Amino acid sequence: MLRRHLINAFALTSALLTLPAIAAEQGKPTPTAKELLAKSTAAEWRTPDPENLIYMQLPQGRVVIELAPDFTPLHAANIRALVRGHYFDKLAIIRVQDNFVTQWGDPNDDESGDKSKIRPLGKAHKTLPPEYTRAIDAKLPWTPLPDGDMYAPEVGFSEGFPAARDPATGREWLTHCYGAVGVARDVDPQTGSGSSLYAVIGQAPRRLDRNLAVAGRVLEGMPLLSGLPRGAEPMGFYTKPAQRVTIESVRLAADIPAKDRPALEVLRTDSPTFAALVDAKRNGHNAFYTLPAGKIDLCSIDIPVREPQPAATTSH
Amino acid sequence: MLRRHLINAFALTSALLTLPAIAAEQGKPTPTAKELLAKSTAAEWRTPDPENLIYMQLPQGRVVIELAPDFTPLHAANIRALVRGHYFDKLAIIRVQDNFVTQWGDPNDDESGDKSKIRPLGKAHKTLPPEYTRAIDAKLPWTPLPDGDMYAPEVGFSEGFPAARDPATGREWLTHCYGAVGVARDVDPQTGSGSSLYAVIGQAPRRLDRNLAVAGRVLEGMPLLSGLPRGAEPMGFYTKPAQRVTIESVRLAADIPAKDRPALEVLRTDSPTFAALVDAKRNGHNAFYTLPAGKIDLCSIDIPVREPQPAATTSH
Repeated sequence: MLRRHLINAFALTSALLTLPAIAAEQGKPTPTAKELLAKSTAAEWRTPDPENLIYMQLPQGRVVIELAPDFTPLHAANIRALVRGHYFDKLAIIRVQDNFVTQWGDPNDDESGDKSKIRPLGKAHKTLPPEYTRAIDAKLPWTPLPDGDMYAPEVGFSEGFPAARDPATGREWLTHCYGAVGVARDVDPQTGSGSSLYAVIGQAPRRLDRNLAVAGRVLEGMPLLSGLPRGAEPMGFYTKPAQRVTIESVRLAADIPAKDRPALEVLRTDSPTFAALVDAKRNGHNAFYTLPAGKIDLCSIDIPVREPQPAATTSH
Repeated sequence: MLRRHLINAFALTSALLTLPAIAAEQGKPTPTAKELLAKSTAAEWRTPDPENLIYMQLPQGRVVIELAPDFTPLHAANIRALVRGHYFDKLAIIRVQDNFVTQWGDPNDDESGDKSKIRPLGKAHKTLPPEYTRAIDAKLPWTPLPDGDMYAPEVGFSEGFPAARDPATGREWLTHCYGAVGVARDVDPQTGSGSSLYAVIGQAPRRLDRNLAVAGRVLEGMPLLSGLPRGAEPMGFYTKPAQRVTIESVRLAADIPAKDRPALEVLRTDSPTFAALVDAKRNGHNAFYTLPAGKIDLCSIDIPVREPQPAATTSH
């Protein structure tokens, strides 16, 4: 028995909705994501602004985070200031709570920490306005999803990020999907400086939306954050300091010479290929998955990332 | 700053909907889950049938799985036969795919395996009818959720399991929520014997519902399955056999003398305390989370498990 066939959901790819010509051939298996991506054009991929791209080096590898300054501009600026001051170097992953979040920051900036050893924030601000939502900007691209959402009037993608909006209030916000990077804070909403961040590693905790600022998302390296032993203390804190993963360094792409910069490209969420991938996941079927879901929820959609292709860039 | 305050979502607990007397006090912080559970009665907890309770011993600890024989009776029987034949002992966790599943079984029963070393299934069947859905049984308790669902006409809890149903077809099925244990198979729907199982470790892949049989769910020990290094090969398979976690043993609770059996209790999903917890997660607010979601999705609801209390049982 070929157990490998089991359940590679991302291989579920077709374009039945966007490509009516294919809809006539519903008996045919849906093209795979790999097949759809192979047909993408160079213009459908974007290179994130190096001012928004952060490399977090862990002992096991690299985590790449893209900031979302159009949603959380003050937090993006503050996180850049922290990174440029090498604030995160030799700090640690301080908690991993199963089916919830992995959080990193200063272990001393905590109830059990040594307050006298708290690392100063350098040129960064200690407090910031919350930035939980922003005004809807009609000039920015918005790619809505067709199946609705339990938690918000509309969901879709804005500038490459899973997002929600409420036309009645005119507000828009980033959602707590898998891989979202949020800003930890104390009870006071102003205390989220970006000096401690968390990434969602489980079922999307959408009830956090609009209660915490989402500063960006992980583009690469999620397994390095999600595949860690869970902390045994309440909320996933580690019992012993030695159990924490030490962060080797955190750098901004813009501060690395372009030729040394590990580059990557992200599929545009307003591209035809992305639309085809979404429809494939909604309606895909093949010999293994015979029953298409017919629906897709916001946080079940992957946003493809790749290394730059030779034709698209000369930096690699 | 008390970073511990960050985001303990499970502490979000109130009973604004079910207890109108409390609704009048909306300014007060919502009681925590711990506070609500402390008020639960012994009758609100159930002890799973030892014929349905499986202990999987891994080097790092124990995973406890509850089978769902009312949904997948033939698979439950076959898994019991496999366990009683010690089929799983010294087999392995063969793949961990990020944001998807952890799967275990016979490493040789795979494309890259040594077919000559495939372990025989003993008294268990090699093939079974799929059991993806069952007829709705009006005699069994059904606890519906109030906020709808994207993938099914109705969702809720049946006998302690997250489930969905379609009154139009009269069918009901277990959903692929975090911790769901599914039956791996080959392309042929009859090839899912239960000799290879998977647990959901990420955003609920609801598009798998009704395409694969869900045989039960993990009651305890999810971190031992979710906190593993992800495999580097496609679909999360490990590159080297040495990277696999070896399963020490798998036993049925019924085969262990009651006095030696690690017992546990599960909160009944048709109990008032469970309803209060669900409402708390829907509408909870406190000094940290000031904006209640007002909604809850099926796969975001935790089902509490505890060690038996002295007053409730004498087995511990």
